[in-house]
Amino acid sequence: MRIALDAHGGDDAPNSVVEGLKLAAEKWPETSFILIGTDDSLLQGNNLQNIQFHKVSEIIAPEDEPVKSVRKKRDSSMVVGCQMVRSGEADAFISAGNTGALMASGLFYTGRMKGVDRPALSPVFPTLENKGILVLDVGANPEAKATHLHQYALLGSVYVKHVLGIDNPKVGLLNIGAENGKGTTLTKDAFELMEGDSRLNFVGNVEAREVLYRPCDVLVCDGFSGNILLKGTEGVAKALFDRLKGAFTKNIFTKLAAGILYPQLKSLKSEMDYKEHGGAPLLGLSGVIIKAHGSSDATAIFHAIRQARLFAGEEIIKQMEDNLHPMEGNVGK
Amino acid sequence: MRIALDAHGGDDAPNSVVEGLKLAAEKWPETSFILIGTDDSLLQGNNLQNIQFHKVSEIIAPEDEPVKSVRKKRDSSMVVGCQMVRSGEADAFISAGNTGALMASGLFYTGRMKGVDRPALSPVFPTLENKGILVLDVGANPEAKATHLHQYALLGSVYVKHVLGIDNPKVGLLNIGAENGKGTTLTKDAFELMEGDSRLNFVGNVEAREVLYRPCDVLVCDGFSGNILLKGTEGVAKALFDRLKGAFTKNIFTKLAAGILYPQLKSLKSEMDYKEHGGAPLLGLSGVIIKAHGSSDATAIFHAIRQARLFAGEEIIKQMEDNLHPMEGNVGK
Repeated sequence: MRIALDAHGGDDAPNSVVEGLKLAAEKWPETSFILIGTDDSLLQGNNLQNIQFHKVSEIIAPEDEPVKSVRKKRDSSMVVGCQMVRSGEADAFISAGNTGALMASGLFYTGRMKGVDRPALSPVFPTLENKGILVLDVGANPEAKATHLHQYALLGSVYVKHVLGIDNPKVGLLNIGAENGKGTTLTKDAFELMEGDSRLNFVGNVEAREVLYRPCDVLVCDGFSGNILLKGTEGVAKALFDRLKGAFTKNIFTKLAAGILYPQLKSLKSEMDYKEHGGAPLLGLSGVIIKAHGSSDATAIFHAIRQARLFAGEEIIKQMEDNLHPMEGNVGK
Repeated sequence: MRIALDAHGGDDAPNSVVEGLKLAAEKWPETSFILIGTDDSLLQGNNLQNIQFHKVSEIIAPEDEPVKSVRKKRDSSMVVGCQMVRSGEADAFISAGNTGALMASGLFYTGRMKGVDRPALSPVFPTLENKGILVLDVGANPEAKATHLHQYALLGSVYVKHVLGIDNPKVGLLNIGAENGKGTTLTKDAFELMEGDSRLNFVGNVEAREVLYRPCDVLVCDGFSGNILLKGTEGVAKALFDRLKGAFTKNIFTKLAAGILYPQLKSLKSEMDYKEHGGAPLLGLSGVIIKAHGSSDATAIFHAIRQARLFAGEEIIKQMEDNLHPMEGNVGK
């Protein structure tokens, strides 16, 4: 298996990418890695035989307009990585760079899966007890239709089963009330499509306040609402931890007390940490493309590679396609 | 001024309502209160001259279908309260009951403000440092149009100025990116309407992760996204505090440490507490109707009454109407 990485995506790139890559290359010597970047001195001093460097001339910047930049910057690390997945030169590509550009590059240069209208950005949301829940879409497609949500459910179910190892995964629909018939035309129509599909283990509507308690394994939503949920959750968790830190360092007594509580706090913080869950796959592309978090450190990159190995390992893309195109008569039973 | 209260709305009703009412009636002896309920023994032993009881025969239950129940249960506390506001018998009505039914009852029996298509449920969101931010809509109108969002901005600005005392309040638009041109057709159109309106101090797009840091005084959104933001935030804050509590009571050492940190934790928790911010006004109705939180205790009811006094006090409804219908040539300058 060959996994390609974008050396230039993310706040701490290229260092975090190189460090995370080295950790992974040591752990999985049978996997080959291709680091794509503009500066071939990045791997200086590297003795690991399973890492090679692919030199490109351009970088897509965080502020670049997605569609224009991937059309123009043909020799950028992001475009070349997506092309490698299409050609089979790589089995997976990971980037922590510009999310919109990665999605555009995936659409143009890797291609969509047959039967998918709009691919979805699909992170695993941290939940209590560290299990996580796959949420899709969180912003690739802000104006979704009911058929898109239905496709997300089918794609997410296969992903969670094979990559996270959860059999018969429960699928929920993000909504503003738990009862049937709640929400907008979009959620009502999507509810009906999912309820009538025997390939899905559909558990109905899920309210935003339940998400951390993990009411399902796959949570389906339009990209706008998903983004609000994701960023709202991140924002509150960050603000509360920041404030706790401030409160606990107020004086010598609070510092001592916080020292005693430190293991508990650390474990709670790690439960809520996205890093251990890897990156967000772009589900619905015809290859394995993973968006790592923009603030990824070496550990987060390492976990994104672990995830890419699982995702690229079992012909999961093919199984997703089969799930979207079942044999006649298999739907709605 | 006369303020009417629904004795039967909310998880701890009628006790929490009666207790909160008594606190308020003692604090503001010049204000008259009308408690609307089915059981006239509720005020037994009450010596406060400024509370009277209005007996009704029916209650709207939490599980009642909103529109049907308010059409049918004409002698329910909720319907009678909304009618009292219309007739002028009361200057404000507060209920902690079924949100959908209160909105329906307000629409049918109190009426909409001229120039408003869809009233909005408009709570003050707790933020760090306890200031709060008015968010509208959080679910009254899940399928909003750009003109609705524009109206929310105008209504919210007047409310925040007069009830919360913030001059020239900053208005933000909840969106999935900070840059102009982000989001859906809805947010793009609403952005344009608000940007071109000289009555508004429009500060542009606001991402969900910023909300707790209070980037604006009024945050405008469609009811679906607003509901996701509200419940997502509540859910995370509750889950984290629950887990902290669990971690801190693990053994004798953590209990001692938590005892030292208790004042800090308590102050952080109170910052994030909705109760001190009162209830959510239904902005866009032609009278003062306030939805108190379903889990309101006596303190929350007391604060909702404080808020109703401010809202009903200064002809604010009239100022909202004037703001929606400015003199010719006042728009877009």
